[in-house]
Amino acid sequence: MSTFTPVKNDTFLRALRREPTEYTPVWLMRQAGRYLPEYRATRARAGNFMGLCTNPELACEVTLQPLARYPLDAAILFSDILTVPDAMGLGLYFEEGEGPKFKSPIKDEADVAKLAVPDVGTSLKYVTDAVSTIRGALGGRVPLIGFSGSPWTLACYMVEGGSSSDFRKVKAMMYKRPDLMHQILSVTTEAVIQYLKAQIEAGAQAVMVFDSWGGALADGAFQQFSLAYLKRIVQALPLEANRGSFKEHIPSIVFTKGGGLWLEDLASTGASALGVDWTVNLGQARARVGERCALQGNLDPNVLFANPPQIEAEVAKALESFGVPQNGVGHVFNLGHGISQFTDPEAVTVMVNAVHNYSKRQRAQ
Amino acid sequence: MSTFTPVKNDTFLRALRREPTEYTPVWLMRQAGRYLPEYRATRARAGNFMGLCTNPELACEVTLQPLARYPLDAAILFSDILTVPDAMGLGLYFEEGEGPKFKSPIKDEADVAKLAVPDVGTSLKYVTDAVSTIRGALGGRVPLIGFSGSPWTLACYMVEGGSSSDFRKVKAMMYKRPDLMHQILSVTTEAVIQYLKAQIEAGAQAVMVFDSWGGALADGAFQQFSLAYLKRIVQALPLEANRGSFKEHIPSIVFTKGGGLWLEDLASTGASALGVDWTVNLGQARARVGERCALQGNLDPNVLFANPPQIEAEVAKALESFGVPQNGVGHVFNLGHGISQFTDPEAVTVMVNAVHNYSKRQRAQ
Repeated sequence: MSTFTPVKNDTFLRALRREPTEYTPVWLMRQAGRYLPEYRATRARAGNFMGLCTNPELACEVTLQPLARYPLDAAILFSDILTVPDAMGLGLYFEEGEGPKFKSPIKDEADVAKLAVPDVGTSLKYVTDAVSTIRGALGGRVPLIGFSGSPWTLACYMVEGGSSSDFRKVKAMMYKRPDLMHQILSVTTEAVIQYLKAQIEAGAQAVMVFDSWGGALADGAFQQFSLAYLKRIVQALPLEANRGSFKEHIPSIVFTKGGGLWLEDLASTGASALGVDWTVNLGQARARVGERCALQGNLDPNVLFANPPQIEAEVAKALESFGVPQNGVGHVFNLGHGISQFTDPEAVTVMVNAVHNYSKRQRAQ
Repeated sequence: MSTFTPVKNDTFLRALRREPTEYTPVWLMRQAGRYLPEYRATRARAGNFMGLCTNPELACEVTLQPLARYPLDAAILFSDILTVPDAMGLGLYFEEGEGPKFKSPIKDEADVAKLAVPDVGTSLKYVTDAVSTIRGALGGRVPLIGFSGSPWTLACYMVEGGSSSDFRKVKAMMYKRPDLMHQILSVTTEAVIQYLKAQIEAGAQAVMVFDSWGGALADGAFQQFSLAYLKRIVQALPLEANRGSFKEHIPSIVFTKGGGLWLEDLASTGASALGVDWTVNLGQARARVGERCALQGNLDPNVLFANPPQIEAEVAKALESFGVPQNGVGHVFNLGHGISQFTDPEAVTVMVNAVHNYSKRQRAQ
């Protein structure tokens, strides 16, 4: 167990707690990724993507890379969202140029009956080891975010066997055999809870649940098959972690991509913050969730393909749309989805500086 | 020019006009399609998909096929959404197992400068011929819907050169060179207006604009790069068509998939009805648009993979969510997206009957 250092730059954590901040904190989903040449170099050394995820030293190395380039306000564990189903025995693998796949997807009742909560302490030790390693290496510079895929999102991959454009298999099972779907989601939810608890124990200072495919669900189905499990997770997580000589409050972020219509529902999970994608108007979202939670988002990653003055203008629009966060309200700047691998790293410099500078000026007015 | 027969079953048109109907009318996006064995047989005869689209007799044949099976309340022209850019010289083609592609996508300013509104009367005559043929063959049984892709959706394909998961090229152009994007959209909008006018003249009794990729846009960008052009189209279309001995009112339907957050904006286009996908709660949508327009939707096509009682229950939920349409309010039942090619045709029978029967019982209460 590493010794824990209290965080120095806690702007991100204060924004999540809806406390005043001197500027709007910023980090990027997938900030450690293929758009960075240094990431590609480390990945080449690791051999492949899972080689990178399962090696705590290399996972730590890539986690820290974007922090060396940019004054980001948070680090996020480098890992994959599908580690939990992999630990459940589904056999995660990656084929070059394609998305993640499972060797043994869930096809029928017999496959569902076999599902069990994995022993997180052994099968996902490589993740908690990465968390400890990164926390130690950060030395309190910025907070470390742990994460998991949401039960519904994991179930999509588990039943489809990989990415899908229509979610036909998983939704056919959901509509035809809701009992089986709830069984998959219940087991997966318990696994996610244990997984996130283990990440918090290992040093994560905030946790995020990526409900990447929640927005594919119909109204009504979303509440039953995704929201209910998101709520179960948020409610089961510890509010505080004991770090020996001090305690840390552990905020949670729930991000349902495409879930802009359900912000009120999502606020009811009790999450500290909700991620929102670029289809959401930040000002309207702030009015809808009020002081129930902070918001995180929401620049279209494609803005980063524009020229610097255009990137700055889009950042300003987002910050103006949200407005200056008063006490009781919080905003963490982010993209509305992961950064594209084709992004010029210089564009990120422009964006991060624009967020910090513009939001400082906003507060000074 | 065929002689026009006034429509007998005008339930669909009355719902769009927000007038009372005896039951909720229903049709399905992509109702003439691969899930029907008779469609696959005609397509095999045509050789390929574009062979089917460009042959008015065969296009008519497949348009009528679902009406022979199901008591649907509208027919929709069988065509492709990309006929307009094809007529603009981009060279539409289909590769087996892949989506549509363009031989000459728009890459730069020079390509944009070359874009011009095509002569709809010659280059898209195969479409208006299909409309006349179908209208004649329908003999007034149900109304015929004409359609086009929205300018933004067409621009996505025109710039990306085909389908895209991230819209990187088209959004990079939009953020970096908004002038070029507006030029593409302006030319395309004028082409779409002429195209829809020609379909109406040929006999279409309602028109629908498919903004299939509007939901990929950020709030703010959507209003500038899709909504503004949708509004221009709706405002330019004739409200009435002269059919010799009688006149027909021509309602318009705008469907921005993933546009549930922007229903108020979309209502401002002046469209008779808005299509909504399954993420939208119909009751809430009705409250939001009020008496400004009717709504069309919104069952998840994957519901059709469930068993009959489950399909009936989901239909009932949607109809209950909307509630009985009072005068001034209208609902057309549909899926929230095109029907899947893997659908059992029997499931459609269950769905269509459920819509008619349940909505009649609702009104009787």
